[in-house]
Amino acid sequence: MRKILIIGAGRSSSSLIKYLLDKSNSENLQITIGDISIENAQQKINNHPNGKAIILDVFNKEQRVAAIKNSDIVISMLPAHLHIEVAKNCLEFKKHMVTASYISKEMKALDEQAKANGLIFMNEIGLDPGIDHMSAMQVIHKIRESGAKMLLFESFCGGLVAPESDDNLWNYKFTWNPRNVVLAGQGGASMFIQEGTYKYIPYHKLFRRTEFLTINGSGKFEAYANRDSLKYRSIYGLDDIPTMYRGTIRKVGFSRAWNSFVQLGMTDDTYTIENSEHMSYRDFTNLFLAYSPSDSVELKFRSYLKIDQDDVMWDKFVELDLFNPNKKVGLVNASPAQILQKILMDSWTLQSEDKDMIVMHHKFGYENEKGKHQIESSMIIKGDDQTYTAMAKTVGLPVAIATLQILNKKITTTGVQLPINKEVYEPILKELEDYGVIFVEKDVPYLGYNPESVRG
Amino acid sequence: MRKILIIGAGRSSSSLIKYLLDKSNSENLQITIGDISIENAQQKINNHPNGKAIILDVFNKEQRVAAIKNSDIVISMLPAHLHIEVAKNCLEFKKHMVTASYISKEMKALDEQAKANGLIFMNEIGLDPGIDHMSAMQVIHKIRESGAKMLLFESFCGGLVAPESDDNLWNYKFTWNPRNVVLAGQGGASMFIQEGTYKYIPYHKLFRRTEFLTINGSGKFEAYANRDSLKYRSIYGLDDIPTMYRGTIRKVGFSRAWNSFVQLGMTDDTYTIENSEHMSYRDFTNLFLAYSPSDSVELKFRSYLKIDQDDVMWDKFVELDLFNPNKKVGLVNASPAQILQKILMDSWTLQSEDKDMIVMHHKFGYENEKGKHQIESSMIIKGDDQTYTAMAKTVGLPVAIATLQILNKKITTTGVQLPINKEVYEPILKELEDYGVIFVEKDVPYLGYNPESVRG
Repeated sequence: MRKILIIGAGRSSSSLIKYLLDKSNSENLQITIGDISIENAQQKINNHPNGKAIILDVFNKEQRVAAIKNSDIVISMLPAHLHIEVAKNCLEFKKHMVTASYISKEMKALDEQAKANGLIFMNEIGLDPGIDHMSAMQVIHKIRESGAKMLLFESFCGGLVAPESDDNLWNYKFTWNPRNVVLAGQGGASMFIQEGTYKYIPYHKLFRRTEFLTINGSGKFEAYANRDSLKYRSIYGLDDIPTMYRGTIRKVGFSRAWNSFVQLGMTDDTYTIENSEHMSYRDFTNLFLAYSPSDSVELKFRSYLKIDQDDVMWDKFVELDLFNPNKKVGLVNASPAQILQKILMDSWTLQSEDKDMIVMHHKFGYENEKGKHQIESSMIIKGDDQTYTAMAKTVGLPVAIATLQILNKKITTTGVQLPINKEVYEPILKELEDYGVIFVEKDVPYLGYNPESVRG
Repeated sequence: MRKILIIGAGRSSSSLIKYLLDKSNSENLQITIGDISIENAQQKINNHPNGKAIILDVFNKEQRVAAIKNSDIVISMLPAHLHIEVAKNCLEFKKHMVTASYISKEMKALDEQAKANGLIFMNEIGLDPGIDHMSAMQVIHKIRESGAKMLLFESFCGGLVAPESDDNLWNYKFTWNPRNVVLAGQGGASMFIQEGTYKYIPYHKLFRRTEFLTINGSGKFEAYANRDSLKYRSIYGLDDIPTMYRGTIRKVGFSRAWNSFVQLGMTDDTYTIENSEHMSYRDFTNLFLAYSPSDSVELKFRSYLKIDQDDVMWDKFVELDLFNPNKKVGLVNASPAQILQKILMDSWTLQSEDKDMIVMHHKFGYENEKGKHQIESSMIIKGDDQTYTAMAKTVGLPVAIATLQILNKKITTTGVQLPINKEVYEPILKELEDYGVIFVEKDVPYLGYNPESVRG
């Protein structure tokens, strides 16, 4: 029996655990799930004979060490900043490790020691980061091997609500941590490079500088720029590429309306509001509008944000109950961002029958002796239900497949890794297709960075 | 002889030093000026027999202690964060101290010890903070003593260029630290209270929520909100006041144009730009505009910021050479804010014949048995030349007068102080009148918070 320890049995672990339990007989696996809530862990195992639930508080060193010692490989599905203690123990007791998180500086620092001990610490192998790296590198390698030169790489991803569950004016529901959605884009300017020119967008313009995307039979989407599109230039071997852009996908019209929250200051998380608990949603909205002895909050809102009477954007705010004088905030000394999150969760929480959807879209521009060309590659996947969501599948399955590949010595490169090598991504992408993670590639005319599709 | 030590002989010390040297015979004063540049200190003394220049590096403990020990009172004109080491030595060697800076937490913490040692640590006794406190408290005390109730307090101050030197389209030149002007309003939402309702303005809307001011014979100005208008509610005894607002004064039209820099992201100081040194002003501007293979930077700028062809705002940007392809930034890896400052300093630096001007304006609303009333109080002062600027006079003279008052035991309250008590402000305001710091009071109809004069 090969022993796999999974730390963290949250929502994103369901597909991961199911995959490994389903293979546990044929692959001879013993799966231990450690979570701070034993019920959580037990529920995920669902009495499978090859599964075992244990209580594991990652801050309890004794519990942590005992569980890690008793395993062959460790999967950490904890919040990103908690991986490092697990990683140190994995080094100490010589266990491989897999995470779906960005490689932190602390994790990176373990690279040499991991190599010296023959250990594989595979990271960034979820959805984004994860499937984005693998699917992009597959095409980039193919282009490079043909002798062509990369001119452009744009990559987009979004967690959305599936069309059949899309019943609000924003065409959006929370499929992941709502706080991250409210704070998205904050903390500095977004930067990218277009045709050799660096571009910087401040937060308060981010949601007005969106790009439209038309995806293969799924209609029109929009995307706003991620914080740092340039981070992976070196890792992908694209140091000299003149255009590189990474963005977040939403349904068309979302960003323009979201921009109103940014403009008002409602996404600010840097200060708290006295007496927020007893405020109504209407009082909250009024905090960000000029005082008037007579004008209504509605009129001030429209006038400040220049929303025409026939603009559907208006109805989006009404739908959220932003002007409701009776609904109370109910949060003590909360920041604007916390209050906005509460208001949005009233409207944007997935209901039990709702399904989510992940959309990923890449554009690759390149040049060979025949001229300039472009490939577009898209992947759309829907959740099965509220357990096996598209998010759980796309985050968990690559982690699960990579874990098995490491145990079966198909992945052999040691050190702190991310999945950008063929050895790693080829078999994983191949197997993901069986689970509905299918990229459709299309040759299109080379557009370069097409200003026709850009607003602002 | 009474010995005064002045630490810091920068631009803002000139009027302070002249005042004290002028009084040195009649008042029996020995003035020592310590600066890191002995030339600076000597120049300010100008061979006056009662003045002495010494080298004083505030980080050199030995120098610092020796100078402080050998004085009766210490004036620190250092940058605000450097006062605290001086203050600790003043405590140790039992010397009074005067600064024109906001009371820091560290300074506040010395209050009890200062009292226990019979020492006066007078702070916030420059212009703003300083003259604003004194002139406001004089009227507030008068209103309160008449038995009336305060309804409204608004206070505005600005450092501007005098009309006779006002020769650019922005009607503005740097009369103080340019960096502070570029970064003004950053670091969180501005907050104030209007008619009992808290109001918050995010940075990116600050310069679009200005209020117009008409000042007694000097025409129309505008003001944008300071970061925290509520800070002095308790200190002024205005805890229950329904309207309190503090703002910064500019000539009309400045803020609307400045807002363009904010919108573009040019005031951002949180990241640096690769290769900024060799960029032209035009390249810099283009960093914040969408890529286009054909459109000019000018057209993109106009279109992005929605500047009509006949809008005078446009000429303001042209005047600054923002689209000049030949002028180079010349700063290595600079932040957008640093580059913008450089560009502005080309145009907004006071020339040798230029004079500056300080404008201060208060509004006091109150209610008595006869009804509601309002008092407006304004002060406008111009600089004599580039040495005795309005800024140097208004910052330095209150410091100098207070220092003498302390030596002459006219100011007697011990501890960490600010000038809000009659004992302190009455004689100082009286004497300041001889130097042109004259407040003109006017009874006007009570307007309350008048939305007619507010934009946005």
